[in-house]
Amino acid sequence: MNNSLLKNIKTPADIKNLSFEQLDTLSEEIRETLISTVAHNGGHLASNLGVVELTVAMHRCFNSPEDKFVFDVGHQVYTHKLLTGRYDRFSTIRTENGLSGFPRPKESEHDPFCSGHSSTSISSAYGISVSELIKGTDNFAVAVIGDGAFTGGLAYEAINNAGRNKEAKLIIILNDNEMSISKNVGSVSKYLTNIRTTKGYFRLKAGVERALNKIPFIGPTLSTKFYRLKTKLKDTFYNSNMFEDLGFRYMGPVDGHNIRKLCEVMEECKHIGSPVLLHVHTKKGKGYELAEKNPSIFHGISQFDADTGETVSKGANFSDEFGKYLCELAGRDERICAITAAMSLGTGLNEFCNSYSDRFFDVGIAEEHAVVFASGLAKGEMVPFFVVYSTFLQRCYDQLIHDAALQKRKMIIAVDRAGFVGEDGETHQGIFDVAFMNTISNFTIYSPSTYEEMRHAMYHAVYKDSNVVAIRYPRGAECELPADFKPTYDVFDIYGDENADVTIVTYGRIFGNACKARNELKSWGKNVRVVKLNRIKPLDASIVEILKNDKHIFFFEEGIQNGGVGEKLALRLLEAGYKGEYKLTAVDYCFVEHGSVEATIKNNHLDTQSMVDIVGGAFGG
Amino acid sequence: MNNSLLKNIKTPADIKNLSFEQLDTLSEEIRETLISTVAHNGGHLASNLGVVELTVAMHRCFNSPEDKFVFDVGHQVYTHKLLTGRYDRFSTIRTENGLSGFPRPKESEHDPFCSGHSSTSISSAYGISVSELIKGTDNFAVAVIGDGAFTGGLAYEAINNAGRNKEAKLIIILNDNEMSISKNVGSVSKYLTNIRTTKGYFRLKAGVERALNKIPFIGPTLSTKFYRLKTKLKDTFYNSNMFEDLGFRYMGPVDGHNIRKLCEVMEECKHIGSPVLLHVHTKKGKGYELAEKNPSIFHGISQFDADTGETVSKGANFSDEFGKYLCELAGRDERICAITAAMSLGTGLNEFCNSYSDRFFDVGIAEEHAVVFASGLAKGEMVPFFVVYSTFLQRCYDQLIHDAALQKRKMIIAVDRAGFVGEDGETHQGIFDVAFMNTISNFTIYSPSTYEEMRHAMYHAVYKDSNVVAIRYPRGAECELPADFKPTYDVFDIYGDENADVTIVTYGRIFGNACKARNELKSWGKNVRVVKLNRIKPLDASIVEILKNDKHIFFFEEGIQNGGVGEKLALRLLEAGYKGEYKLTAVDYCFVEHGSVEATIKNNHLDTQSMVDIVGGAFGG
Repeated sequence: MNNSLLKNIKTPADIKNLSFEQLDTLSEEIRETLISTVAHNGGHLASNLGVVELTVAMHRCFNSPEDKFVFDVGHQVYTHKLLTGRYDRFSTIRTENGLSGFPRPKESEHDPFCSGHSSTSISSAYGISVSELIKGTDNFAVAVIGDGAFTGGLAYEAINNAGRNKEAKLIIILNDNEMSISKNVGSVSKYLTNIRTTKGYFRLKAGVERALNKIPFIGPTLSTKFYRLKTKLKDTFYNSNMFEDLGFRYMGPVDGHNIRKLCEVMEECKHIGSPVLLHVHTKKGKGYELAEKNPSIFHGISQFDADTGETVSKGANFSDEFGKYLCELAGRDERICAITAAMSLGTGLNEFCNSYSDRFFDVGIAEEHAVVFASGLAKGEMVPFFVVYSTFLQRCYDQLIHDAALQKRKMIIAVDRAGFVGEDGETHQGIFDVAFMNTISNFTIYSPSTYEEMRHAMYHAVYKDSNVVAIRYPRGAECELPADFKPTYDVFDIYGDENADVTIVTYGRIFGNACKARNELKSWGKNVRVVKLNRIKPLDASIVEILKNDKHIFFFEEGIQNGGVGEKLALRLLEAGYKGEYKLTAVDYCFVEHGSVEATIKNNHLDTQSMVDIVGGAFGG
Repeated sequence: MNNSLLKNIKTPADIKNLSFEQLDTLSEEIRETLISTVAHNGGHLASNLGVVELTVAMHRCFNSPEDKFVFDVGHQVYTHKLLTGRYDRFSTIRTENGLSGFPRPKESEHDPFCSGHSSTSISSAYGISVSELIKGTDNFAVAVIGDGAFTGGLAYEAINNAGRNKEAKLIIILNDNEMSISKNVGSVSKYLTNIRTTKGYFRLKAGVERALNKIPFIGPTLSTKFYRLKTKLKDTFYNSNMFEDLGFRYMGPVDGHNIRKLCEVMEECKHIGSPVLLHVHTKKGKGYELAEKNPSIFHGISQFDADTGETVSKGANFSDEFGKYLCELAGRDERICAITAAMSLGTGLNEFCNSYSDRFFDVGIAEEHAVVFASGLAKGEMVPFFVVYSTFLQRCYDQLIHDAALQKRKMIIAVDRAGFVGEDGETHQGIFDVAFMNTISNFTIYSPSTYEEMRHAMYHAVYKDSNVVAIRYPRGAECELPADFKPTYDVFDIYGDENADVTIVTYGRIFGNACKARNELKSWGKNVRVVKLNRIKPLDASIVEILKNDKHIFFFEEGIQNGGVGEKLALRLLEAGYKGEYKLTAVDYCFVEHGSVEATIKNNHLDTQSMVDIVGGAFGG
C-alpha cells in the first residue's frame, strides 16, 4: 500500500475535499499504517483500529484546532495524529524523542490536552466549551470517550455538571466497543447493550409516536384520558434514556464504521444547540482479524509479527509471578480476595479470576471505588488485594487515607508498574507512589527486587503485618543479582564491604545496578557497601545507626525526590547528628518522558555507570 | 422535655418494643436534644434534624450491629449515636476526648466505618455485603446517602459495580433533601426533582398499567400491533428509572418523616432479594423553623442561641477575606473564574456567585471534576480559582498531577482550612496538602500568615507566576503579629536577631506563635531569629545559604512530617554540608483527633510555650 491519499493529508482541511469513497480508501490506508507501525514499535492497537472511521468523520465535520478534540485516555489518538500533520514522524511513535503514544500539546496544536488517565475528557472538554462561551466564539469541544472510561466516576461528575448548561457547545462521542481494556463490566455497560440491541432506538421512538398518534380514534369516552396518557408516554419515551435524564440530547446508536452515517449524524449534532451525547458503536480491533478476536491482548502490545500476531516472549515478569503466588495463597486461605480496576490481564489476575471467581472483583475503571470496596471487604474479615498500576493508584490517594488507613483495615495494595514504565511516558510513570503513600499513617510499604522477595512480602502482609500494606514492584522482570548476594528477607539487606564508610542506599529493581556498581568500584580497590531496603516504610531505626558514622552516603531512588525515602533518611540522619556527606539521586521535579525503561533509568542517573561515576567521586576521582 | 423515652434507649433493641405513637414522641425528644446540644457545642444541625425519623425507622426494621449502617459523609449520624448507647455522653460531642461528630468505630460497634468525606458509603456498604455473602450470613448492609453526596463520582462507580450483583443484601437509602451543603446542583438533582414531582411514581406506574390493559378492546385491526406496543411500553415504564437502568430495584419516593410508611417500605425492601435503592424525601432542618429556612447556615454551625438562631460573630476570617479580594480581582479582570465543589458559603464565594454568576461554577461534590474542568477553562485562557478545603483536595491528587501540572495550566488552587480544623477531627484535618502538593512539578505553593499576605499571593499568582499555584490558608482568623514585624511580601521574611545562630523556621499561622516564642526567649537574653517562609514551594535556594552556618535550626510545621517542608529543608541542608543541629516538630504519623484548634496546636507542640521549651533547650536550659 503506497498511502497515496494518507501521505498527502498535511492538515485536516485536506480531508474535507475527499469523496466518501476516497475517505473509505483513506481509512484502509490508515488501518494498514496502524498495524505495521504498532507491529514494529508496540503500542495501543485494538483501540486505535476501532476509531479510524470515527476520527476521519470528526475531521470531516468539525474544524480542528478551532474545534477542540479531547480523546479520553488518549490511546485511540493514532488516527488523529496521522491526520494532523504527524504522518511523516509516525514511525517514531513511542520511541525516545519520537512521537508520544498519547495526545500531546507539545507535538501539535490539534492536541489540546495531554491525556493518559481515564475518564477525564468530558470535564476538560466542558471546561473548554465554557471558556469558548465566555469568549463568545462558535467553537465546539468534542470529547471522545469509550464505554470503559464511562465506568469512571469522573465522567459521571462531568455529565452531571455539564448537563444543566444548555448553551455549551459540547459534544460527547461515546465510543461503545463493549470493552474497556478487558471485557467491560458493570451496569452501565449492560445498559448500553440494552440500547443497542433494541434494534434501533430511533426507529422505536418513531414507531411508538406513529402508533400513539392513532389513539384518539379509539372513541370519545376514553379520549381525554388517553390524551393525557399519550402525553405522558411520549414524554417518557423521549426522556427515558439515562443520558437524557442527565440533561443531554441523546443521538444514536450509529455504526461507527460507516463514515457517511457518522457525518450525517454529526452534522445534526452541530445544530441541536445544547450538549449532545452521540452513541457510536464500534468494534475494537476492527479490520485486523487477530485483534478483533483478542482485543484485550491487542489493546496494548509490544512488538509483534503482523501476520501471526505473535509477540516475542519476554519470559517471567513480576505481574505473572504475583498472580501465581496470589492463587497459591487463595487456595489455602478463603479470606483472600482480588480486586482489579479493569486490568485483570495486565496485572496477572486472569488465573485468579478463573479459579476463584467468587472472590475476584473487576470493578471497572474505578480505582477510588476499588479502595473503599476493599475496605468494606476487610471490615467483613476478608483479606483483599487491590492490584493496580502505580500511576492509577494516584487516583485513590484520599481513599487510602480516609477509607483504608484511618479505618486501620488489613488490606493489601499491590502496586504494579512501580517506577519507570518506558514507552507509555509521562502520564504513566510510576514515580509518585512512594512519596504519596509515605505521608499516610497505619501503612507499611515493601519494595522487593526479586520475585522471591515479593512472595515473602505478600506472605508477611497477610499473616504478620497489620493495617494497610503496599507491595510495589516494577514492570517487567526481576533484576539480576550477583551470586554472592544472600537475601535475608528481613527489612533490609547489606551487600559488599560491611565496614566500608562509603555506602549506597537504594531499593527496588535498581539494587541490581547498585550491586554491579559496587563490584566495579571494588575491582578498582574502592570499598563500598550497599544497603538495600526491603521495607521502605516505616524506615527501620537501626538503619540510621548503621549509617550515621559513614563518610559518604549515596542514595539512589527510582521515584520522585520530594517525600521519597531518600529525603526521609536525610532528616533522620541530620536529627541523629550525621556529619558526613549525603547525596540523593532521584527524579527531581519533572515529568519523565517516554523512551525505553533502560534509557529512562540512564537519563535519570540510576544506571550502573552513573552510580560508578557518582559514588566514585567520594574517593577523589 | 425530660426525654423519658430517649434516656431509656440503651441499645437499638429497646426501640423495637415501642408503638408508632411512642416512636413519634421519641423523635420529638431526639429533635429537642439535637437542637439544644448543637446550640451549645456547635456541629451539624440541619442534616441531622432531617433524618431523625429515618434513623428511628432503620433501627426499628433492621438489627444493628449485625446489619451494618453506613452513613455517608457521617454528618447525619447524631440520631444514630443517641439510639446506640451514646445518649449519656452526647453532651460531649465534638469536644476534646468527647464523642466525635462523625461515625467512629472506636466509640461503638454500631459504627462500622469512620466517615467524613462524601460519597463513600455505597462502596463500603457493598464491600461489607459481599463479605457477608462469602461468609453466608443473612445480614444487610444499609448505606444512607444524601442527594448531595450522590453528585460524587465515587457513588456512581459503586452503583455501577454493585448493580450487577443480584445476590448482595445491599440497601441504599437515598436521603433526598434537595441540598448538599448548599442548594444542590446538577442534572441528577433535577432528575430526582422530576421523580418526586410526578405526584407519586408508584401511582403513575399503576395508572398506566391499568390504562394499557384496556387497549385490547380498541378493535381487532390494531390489536396485534398494540399488543406489541403495550409490552414495550410496560417495559419502558418499569425500567425507565435511572436507578433501575443501573441494576437496582427502585422504591419510592417515600415521606422521610413518616415512620409508619418508612417501616412499611423498609420491610418490603428486605424481601426483594436484590440490591434496592430506596428514595426517601426529607426536609433538611425539619422541625426547627430557623434551620428549615436557612439549611446552609445551619448545616455546620458554631455555638448559637437556640431561640434566635444567632451565632457569636467571630469577626473577619480568611475565607471571607479571600472571597472579597477575589471579587475585586474579578471586577478588573474578566478571565477570573471561581469554582466550588458544593461549598460556596464555607469558602466565602457567595458574593462572587452573586456578582459574577457567569464565571462562577458550583460543580457539586465533585473535586476531581473541578480540577479537570478548571484545567479546561485555563486551556481556554480563563484564570480559574478552584476554592476547596484542604482535606477534600486530597481527592484530586491525580488530577492535580495529570490534568493540571502536566498540562502546565495557569490555574489557582485556593486551599481553605489548611492545617488543623478543630472540632471536625481526624477525617477533616488539613495536614496533608503541603506534603502531597510538594511532590508535583510545575507547582508553586504559598502559605500566608495574614490576609494581606494572602492578597499579595493571589495577585502574584494571577499576574506573575506561571503554571499551577496553590495558596493555602487556615480556618479562622489571621494570626496576631508583633508590631515590629515588617512584612516584605517576598518569598520569605526574617524576624528577630538577624545574626543569631539559633533559628526557628516556620510558615503559616503558627508564625504568630514563633514570634511570641522569640520575644519571650529574647526577654531572657536568648537570641533567636525566625525565618518565615511565604512561598514554601519551590524552596528558595538562598534560605539554605542563610541557614547553613547556624548552630541550631528548629523547624515547626503544622502538617504531616513526611514530604513536608521541614524534611525537604533537612535534605537541602545536609547536601549543603550543614553541621549544626536540626530538629523538626511536625505531625508525625498519626491521625489527629478532634478538639479545639488551640488545643490541637498545643497537643502537637506548635504553641508558643512548646516552642519556648524546645528552642530554649539549645541554650542549655
